[in-house]
Amino acid sequence: MQSYEYVVVTDPEVMAELAPLWERCVDAYLATIGKYAPAGMDEAAYGRMVAAIEYQRDHFAETPARMAEIQERFAALAEGSCVYPGVQNLLLAARGLGLAANITIWHLMLEEEWKAALGIPEDMHTFAAVPVGWPRGDFGPVRCRPVEEVVHRNRW
Amino acid sequence: MQSYEYVVVTDPEVMAELAPLWERCVDAYLATIGKYAPAGMDEAAYGRMVAAIEYQRDHFAETPARMAEIQERFAALAEGSCVYPGVQNLLLAARGLGLAANITIWHLMLEEEWKAALGIPEDMHTFAAVPVGWPRGDFGPVRCRPVEEVVHRNRW
Ligand SMILES: Cc1cc2nc3c(=O)[nH]c(=O)nc-3n(C[C@H](O)[C@H](O)[C@H](O)COP(=O)(O)O)c2cc1C
Ligand SMILES: Cc1cc2nc3c(=O)[nH]c(=O)nc-3n(C[C@H](O)[C@H](O)[C@H](O)COP(=O)(O)O)c2cc1C
Repeated sequence: MQSYEYVVVTDPEVMAELAPLWERCVDAYLATIGKYAPAGMDEAAYGRMVAAIEYQRDHFAETPARMAEIQERFAALAEGSCVYPGVQNLLLAARGLGLAANITIWHLMLEEEWKAALGIPEDMHTFAAVPVGWPRGDFGPVRCRPVEEVVHRNRW
Repeated sequence: MQSYEYVVVTDPEVMAELAPLWERCVDAYLATIGKYAPAGMDEAAYGRMVAAIEYQRDHFAETPARMAEIQERFAALAEGSCVYPGVQNLLLAARGLGLAANITIWHLMLEEEWKAALGIPEDMHTFAAVPVGWPRGDFGPVRCRPVEEVVHRNRW
């Protein structure tokens, strides 16, 4: 099934309208779950991630492009199964071009406001907001959990 | 976040245990929503897909590998955002190797039974079941909706 649509935002005026929404989402995250490093990430790495998040919050309006991934709410069975594979294709394509891009879902904390700002119809559900831009500094290889930790053979 | 685990089933005995569950899921689908081609797919293409689905139902136990994608239920905000990108990586890697693989979610119709058969803990939620095997016949390029249909610029 290919039940998805993208809103690609490159207009600086639209980005400026979205910036305060993003700031509220980031601040809500940092004040709650974001207070501590997630399990499996050391404090130093998490500190670097928080610094990147704060930088991006404060420079949101300059992000060259932002994609909002949208899907008609078609089935509660596995929402997102039609959308996130395409998001991953987008991330891989961006990396292939030397662009930095990230999957984020924090816009969902204020989903109604984001939808209103972008004119997205009521009956559409949004799944990801992907900032895309030229990397600042080192945009190295991604970290992956070791395969032995992640894979079970034949049974759990 | 990398909150996911895979169960890789290659043991024919385990596959044989799963086969009747898959058959029930397929039959339930074909008797309901699967009666008609999804919007945007012509009847001939849908007929070929149904034939492939029936073939796969009847030869399920011979599928060389099946992956169940699992995630701890960690947030209702956007379930699947940590899991489906990895599923897409799996599909792309399979294709790179000349293997046929497909994302499916029908096992969710009988999720408790699948989890019991595979010994997956109660508090884990499953997101996809991906059959992997050598393609029979033509495993051509995938169809994609045209980009003009899918992308909105700056606003909906
Ligand atoms: C602003 C921001 C928001 C993020 N939001 C999410 C999110 O909503 N869901 C998620 O799974 N990961 C989220 N992440 C994590 C990133 O997608 C990515 O996994 C993380 O930056 C580590 O990637 P790296 O190893 O390539 O640096 C977020 C990261 C940043 C910087
Ligand atoms: C047995 C079977 C089950 C499927 N289940 C799902 C599903 O649960 N969700 C979904 O989005 N697509 C499902 N599909 C669709 C496939 O993932 C794929 O999109 C479809 O076969 C068209 O791909 P193609 O253009 O490469 O042939 C299923 C297909 C088959 C054959």
